[in-house]
Amino acid sequence: MELKVPQEPVLKELQQVEEELESALQSDRPLIQKVGNHLLATRGKRFRPTLLLLSATLNGTVPPLAICAATVVELIHTATLIHDDSIDSSELRRGSPTVNYVWDDDVSIAMGDLIYSKAFSILVKNEMYDAMRVLAEASHRMSVGELHELEKRNDLDITEEDYMTIIADKTASLISASCEIGAMLGNPEDGARACFSKYGHAVGLAFQITDDLFDFVGHAIETGKNVGNDVRGGKFTLPLIAALKNATSKDRARMHNIVTLGDVADGRWEELLALMDEYDGIEYSKEKALAYAAEAKRTIRPFESSPCYKHLCSAVDYTVERRQ
Amino acid sequence: MELKVPQEPVLKELQQVEEELESALQSDRPLIQKVGNHLLATRGKRFRPTLLLLSATLNGTVPPLAICAATVVELIHTATLIHDDSIDSSELRRGSPTVNYVWDDDVSIAMGDLIYSKAFSILVKNEMYDAMRVLAEASHRMSVGELHELEKRNDLDITEEDYMTIIADKTASLISASCEIGAMLGNPEDGARACFSKYGHAVGLAFQITDDLFDFVGHAIETGKNVGNDVRGGKFTLPLIAALKNATSKDRARMHNIVTLGDVADGRWEELLALMDEYDGIEYSKEKALAYAAEAKRTIRPFESSPCYKHLCSAVDYTVERRQ
Repeated sequence: MELKVPQEPVLKELQQVEEELESALQSDRPLIQKVGNHLLATRGKRFRPTLLLLSATLNGTVPPLAICAATVVELIHTATLIHDDSIDSSELRRGSPTVNYVWDDDVSIAMGDLIYSKAFSILVKNEMYDAMRVLAEASHRMSVGELHELEKRNDLDITEEDYMTIIADKTASLISASCEIGAMLGNPEDGARACFSKYGHAVGLAFQITDDLFDFVGHAIETGKNVGNDVRGGKFTLPLIAALKNATSKDRARMHNIVTLGDVADGRWEELLALMDEYDGIEYSKEKALAYAAEAKRTIRPFESSPCYKHLCSAVDYTVERRQ
Repeated sequence: MELKVPQEPVLKELQQVEEELESALQSDRPLIQKVGNHLLATRGKRFRPTLLLLSATLNGTVPPLAICAATVVELIHTATLIHDDSIDSSELRRGSPTVNYVWDDDVSIAMGDLIYSKAFSILVKNEMYDAMRVLAEASHRMSVGELHELEKRNDLDITEEDYMTIIADKTASLISASCEIGAMLGNPEDGARACFSKYGHAVGLAFQITDDLFDFVGHAIETGKNVGNDVRGGKFTLPLIAALKNATSKDRARMHNIVTLGDVADGRWEELLALMDEYDGIEYSKEKALAYAAEAKRTIRPFESSPCYKHLCSAVDYTVERRQ
């Protein structure tokens, strides 16, 4: 399953978003331009712009401000990724070296700030105050989620509830905001906004649970990220949380032991994976992701007759079926 | 010279800003609350809120939204300091350990983002769109300045022009924005806004040049910062740039040598200071700061009859006469 399928009705608009991103990252300062070029070259899948544009196209046409809004959510997402990679000391993103790896954490901090402020400048310039309201709230929740995650770092007593709150704030809030803004711009009908906010929330949860599974069952070549990075960084996600909950005290101690070492070499990683499999950590997480995917589809059923409905559904399928 | 003098007519409002800051930094999440409390305990001088409130009081009364705007500029300033300290690996700020020192760079990045997004949320909630326009632009310039500074790090060929552009973006933009927003809220008269934007710009330049002098001639106990931190971090500021320009090639080579070593122990710091003194680096910078201070005062002369005029002038004096 590739993102191309749901992207099909908004390909032209996504190209315009690409041009807007390029122009937003242009600068007279050589360092800023270099980092900007690096970011454009290692471009992502534009998942949030896709959802925003699809949500905005419910009535058949794309409202002009949707291009601008889609650019802004991608900029905010990019700023967050740069800061996240620096926090997680990640070396790979989308198969390319991260900003903190090519330059350093200092450049990452400042460049994230720059892109974030650029996003808000674009909103101000276009007087998109409703979108700003939604995105200021989403941005705030994203950093609350980040700090919540840092608070729980290396804490093996982290609960599933903690995890769900963290990913709702860190990931689902911006995806939900993207869909809400799309609906707001494209559909004056009452209720569409709330509906799409919920759709985006469920998509976001399914997306992040799937993403966290990649840290255990992914391959660096496919996902463009290093496997085991989360565990090494003391970031314990649903597959591990669920397995720990089901494990016997002896096996829980063994898993604690492997995870606390931080180093997962010498067959310890394979042992951890086997234990997680035994205690259904992987399976449970996959099922959770599928349940949120189903919920997302249910949420937008009122818009079944819209030409974009099926693409919004295949965006959901992509979320859980993707290999990267 | 203390900031108390210019603060005198807005003391009550500054107290209200303090309460607003406290409420803005409140959180259910223990880590966020802890960092928030640390920031409130190591409170700064509230220079930007002071200038905003004074600029807003030109007509004799403080407009209610000025409290909110003053809180927002202090939040943006705080977010920037947290990121800056992390970038500079500073251990001391206002005589207290920095967030990156007490916690780590990860918490600094996320907490800076959180406070920044909080600032914009407050503006959105209060529908302060004009202020938002000014502050989105200022925030963007601040990160451009930060990246410009990073680009020139360890570059001994940095020119005075580079330096002036960096401090105009990094420091003067937010101080100028504070004064502009104050004038905007408090004085509907045409021209006040542009006047106060210029005043803030000149104050900001005088402020930063004075700040950079502290790295050479300050004392950790008075300034609350470590002396020599800039040079050690490869950050070359006006006193050094000016001295290098005037030095003979032999002495320039000697200064290059000391600075490139990064380590300024074993009498090398004293040698550097002596060379900088010989080539008028310190004196030149002091004069520059005084010239901008004079310019600031000239800019607001049209408002000579306002009750706050003399306090705005003593804020300028504070900028260059302060010991911390």
